[in-house]
Amino acid sequence: MTGPRAVRQHITEERIVEAALALIHDEPSGSFTLAKLAKRLHISAPTIYSHVPNKQYIIERVRSRVVAEIDCSSFERLPWDEALADWARSYANAFVKHPETIPLLTTNPVQAPELVRQYEVIATALLEAGWPPDEIVAVFTVVESFVMGSVLDLVAPVQMVQPADGEEYPLLRSLLGESADVLRAQHTFELGIETMIDGLRRRLERVAVRPV
Amino acid sequence: MTGPRAVRQHITEERIVEAALALIHDEPSGSFTLAKLAKRLHISAPTIYSHVPNKQYIIERVRSRVVAEIDCSSFERLPWDEALADWARSYANAFVKHPETIPLLTTNPVQAPELVRQYEVIATALLEAGWPPDEIVAVFTVVESFVMGSVLDLVAPVQMVQPADGEEYPLLRSLLGESADVLRAQHTFELGIETMIDGLRRRLERVAVRPV
Repeated sequence: MTGPRAVRQHITEERIVEAALALIHDEPSGSFTLAKLAKRLHISAPTIYSHVPNKQYIIERVRSRVVAEIDCSSFERLPWDEALADWARSYANAFVKHPETIPLLTTNPVQAPELVRQYEVIATALLEAGWPPDEIVAVFTVVESFVMGSVLDLVAPVQMVQPADGEEYPLLRSLLGESADVLRAQHTFELGIETMIDGLRRRLERVAVRPV
Repeated sequence: MTGPRAVRQHITEERIVEAALALIHDEPSGSFTLAKLAKRLHISAPTIYSHVPNKQYIIERVRSRVVAEIDCSSFERLPWDEALADWARSYANAFVKHPETIPLLTTNPVQAPELVRQYEVIATALLEAGWPPDEIVAVFTVVESFVMGSVLDLVAPVQMVQPADGEEYPLLRSLLGESADVLRAQHTFELGIETMIDGLRRRLERVAVRPV
């Protein structure tokens, strides 16, 4: 049986990923370094390297944790357009719980198998739907970009535009009054997803290739 | 004539905003505090308060600086859909120069008059185009969300998806090969803007209200 001290100092990959998530939460984005992570774990940087190969690996384990809840099973039973909308909603829900990871995860190359596997499923569905191969990566990327920007809006104040007192914006003020609602960002996200998917549907009608 | 020491210590709103931008650059997002800003300027927090009213005010001066280059003059000469696409491109260009401000600026309410004024121009154009008043704020917000997510992609590595060696994703690997290009994110952004604007055009056909 190990004593409390040994338990406390037992470093696992799991603990490193937990500490990385906490560090990103406290200091979002570019400032993520292994030196800071080691300090948080009260260990030396070389000790981290005995558990994980490099910083990129830790970032991808963090991504795996965040994206674990994204569900792409709709592609097994729905047409590509409805499945893509479902995937986008599920993707947004996963990141709304960890919005502080967005700057780091969206600017580092994706290797996490949990997400890459989903891309393969989606790419297969888009190819079968007739999407030209050279547009498929762009199609799921534009959906992801919209989701990421929307998550930042979903975690923002209910009313994101708040003209200062004394300034004259009569139309904008009246429109903001109409859209001030706790579900504002949720409704906006739905409008955006429906609009983007509809635009993609129209695009496919123009560019579709028929399977040989 | 003031000596060098007096010049060095002369705190202006301009210098505070410069220091805030530098601080956000070094420590993006949630960690922006007046205490840190004061430390960077080598002054006390009370001294900052003698120049600017509060943290929100500084954030909005930073926003003003970043959005100064966004051009919405297209709304004066082009139909709403083309003008919105131009605005989105200009918006993305402004933020590509300061991507580290995105988490902070997208989660704090917008008061900066430079941007609020643009919203009034855009809202007026959308209303004249027949958009229902209760959708207008959502329409420019979905475009902004897509722009913000795309900026994170535009400043990311050329190839954002990089499956690890040894993993099998035959279709995805082949598609990634086709889209590996220094202009990948730029092409993706264009596809997304065109798609979203086209979707909005279709939506307007369904929901348009005729002016009384």
